[in-house]
Amino acid sequence: MGSAGIVGSAAVVDAGDEGDTGGRIAQVVGAGLIGGSIGAGLRARGWSVAVADLDDSRCRRAVEIGSADRSGYDPAAEIVFVAVPPSSCAEVSLEALEKFPSAVVTDVASVKRVVVDKVTDARFVGGHPMAGSEQDGVDGSDPDMFVGATWVLTPEPGTDPVAFATVRSVVSGLGANVVELESWRHDQLVALVSHVPHLTAATLMNLAAVAADENATLLRLAAGGFRDMTRIAAGGSAIWPDICAENRDAILDVLDRLQGSLTQIRQVVLAGDRAALLGMLENARSARVNLPGRLAEPETAAEVRVVVTDRPGVLASVTTLLGEMGVNIWDLEIAHSAEGERGVLVVVVDGAATEAVRHALGERGFQCSIRPVGS
Amino acid sequence: MGSAGIVGSAAVVDAGDEGDTGGRIAQVVGAGLIGGSIGAGLRARGWSVAVADLDDSRCRRAVEIGSADRSGYDPAAEIVFVAVPPSSCAEVSLEALEKFPSAVVTDVASVKRVVVDKVTDARFVGGHPMAGSEQDGVDGSDPDMFVGATWVLTPEPGTDPVAFATVRSVVSGLGANVVELESWRHDQLVALVSHVPHLTAATLMNLAAVAADENATLLRLAAGGFRDMTRIAAGGSAIWPDICAENRDAILDVLDRLQGSLTQIRQVVLAGDRAALLGMLENARSARVNLPGRLAEPETAAEVRVVVTDRPGVLASVTTLLGEMGVNIWDLEIAHSAEGERGVLVVVVDGAATEAVRHALGERGFQCSIRPVGS
Repeated sequence: MGSAGIVGSAAVVDAGDEGDTGGRIAQVVGAGLIGGSIGAGLRARGWSVAVADLDDSRCRRAVEIGSADRSGYDPAAEIVFVAVPPSSCAEVSLEALEKFPSAVVTDVASVKRVVVDKVTDARFVGGHPMAGSEQDGVDGSDPDMFVGATWVLTPEPGTDPVAFATVRSVVSGLGANVVELESWRHDQLVALVSHVPHLTAATLMNLAAVAADENATLLRLAAGGFRDMTRIAAGGSAIWPDICAENRDAILDVLDRLQGSLTQIRQVVLAGDRAALLGMLENARSARVNLPGRLAEPETAAEVRVVVTDRPGVLASVTTLLGEMGVNIWDLEIAHSAEGERGVLVVVVDGAATEAVRHALGERGFQCSIRPVGS
Repeated sequence: MGSAGIVGSAAVVDAGDEGDTGGRIAQVVGAGLIGGSIGAGLRARGWSVAVADLDDSRCRRAVEIGSADRSGYDPAAEIVFVAVPPSSCAEVSLEALEKFPSAVVTDVASVKRVVVDKVTDARFVGGHPMAGSEQDGVDGSDPDMFVGATWVLTPEPGTDPVAFATVRSVVSGLGANVVELESWRHDQLVALVSHVPHLTAATLMNLAAVAADENATLLRLAAGGFRDMTRIAAGGSAIWPDICAENRDAILDVLDRLQGSLTQIRQVVLAGDRAALLGMLENARSARVNLPGRLAEPETAAEVRVVVTDRPGVLASVTTLLGEMGVNIWDLEIAHSAEGERGVLVVVVDGAATEAVRHALGERGFQCSIRPVGS
């Protein structure tokens, strides 16, 4: 969303929100994908939303596409969402606390301790909606972006409980599942499940790329499993210097743990310790199989697993069939085998539909297995 | 496929292949997924196939489902496929060379040097079809499993050129793309794109699982990117002790390189060297974006990228639409964002269909971008 702030040039403008009586008022600072989606989501739920951004054209675009009612800032806002790039979040949050002396202020930075260490006002609540990407523009705004998403809040001992309750209630209203964490704990956990995995994927991809320069055949051997593992490395790089700077200590700690574990694996491989290797892989297998899926799944969600080849038509015929049956697809992934492109299409559907799905797939020659999600 | 061999109990049985005149004859040893698929593929292409396995019931099943014409071994076979677990491949190949004194013998073990070092006969050609999984049973056999798959052959200086040409021609006939590599090079490359990535995925999953024991919230923060990266860790563990024993040196070498690269990353993060970090991530991004997809794609394949949420119905409505339009889906993946479950559905279709696809998706409110594959 580029840089943004409480902009001097942005006057208090009310552009055509006549008839907006009695609604709650929110201020969004930063007209990017996240800010735009917060604005659109709040508007869809009856709020009146003002948006500010260093770049006026982004504000105009946000109003144009319905992510905000008006450009500028609205002193009557009861809550301010600071949705600017991570490196500016603390500074812009401090400005917002001054500019809005009675509002609750929250931010969306993906690293939290560096923000809450600087922004110690009782009216501030650190936040991290785990959805979307800071790099996409306001045009991708989606009022339902946060439905079912995890939204971490990191209140401090000095945080006003009423401010916290307000933020919790508003983001829950956007459909998010609020998780309360201490800021250092949040940073440690995202280092483990997001930051270090990203750095590792990039490292594996680079090792392969170097080898591919010597022997182009390499990439013909890189099958579905390798593609899965390195997929996140295809994402944009721009946010990572900030993240690595702001979450440095947690990232270094997890990198050390990763290296320690890889050293152990090296010992196990060197020693040919089959039992230790099997134990390690079985632990991982069991943990991965039990990794929870999306939180918005129906209570009775079931996984339908269909062996598919990537031959044309096979994937489409399965998904088309489900579409024709009116079966909602809650999630879908292709689990490739370690080698080759053959895979298992895993479709998460409502458990009530599974028998009909099994029957219909069977009639068309597809074998499938079905199991409840989480079992 | 369990253990298998040239079985003493398996007599030369001709079970109902009357009328099979003039066809070429192949012997498959090992009635698992790979052996069954080779048999089924050859039969579909006019060959007569005999199958042997230590377990008679697996042979009977292979014949029942059409993966072979008959149980037992056929001395008239011109080619023998040894499709037994990696740790038995060398031994069973040596037996096959004795038992079939004029046939060409090839194997399917996923580590090659350990086999070709032991099996030095001029009639032997090491092979590694990169498709399927050694752990699945014969019931999953598919005559077209190898269509578009990479099949590595590792001839040695002493290999008879005619034997090599025969194997190359037969596996090409199954639809595979043959890649010729020295055995040590093959082992080095698969360590890099398959073995070490698998061990790394398991390691990351275990680090997260240990942290999740302390704080169950962790797994609620594990989004699509983490799921992609650890997906292969959900695969079976049974083959890995063999692979790690047989490809030990190459795996240790790649582990060392990975550790070296992670140490560099650690330095970069510690020093806050933004330029070095960006350079590293940009290299990886560019390499991943250019990773070739399936080889069987049409020349003009194009990627259609559609922003989707995982809300029910969205995935199905896109794939159903393509199905209704008669557009073949060559490949499909969901590229999750680093955080959250929002993603981009990437569908590979024939380039000729892209404008119609763009129009149809646009009419239904989906924005999509289209680019030729490989660009």
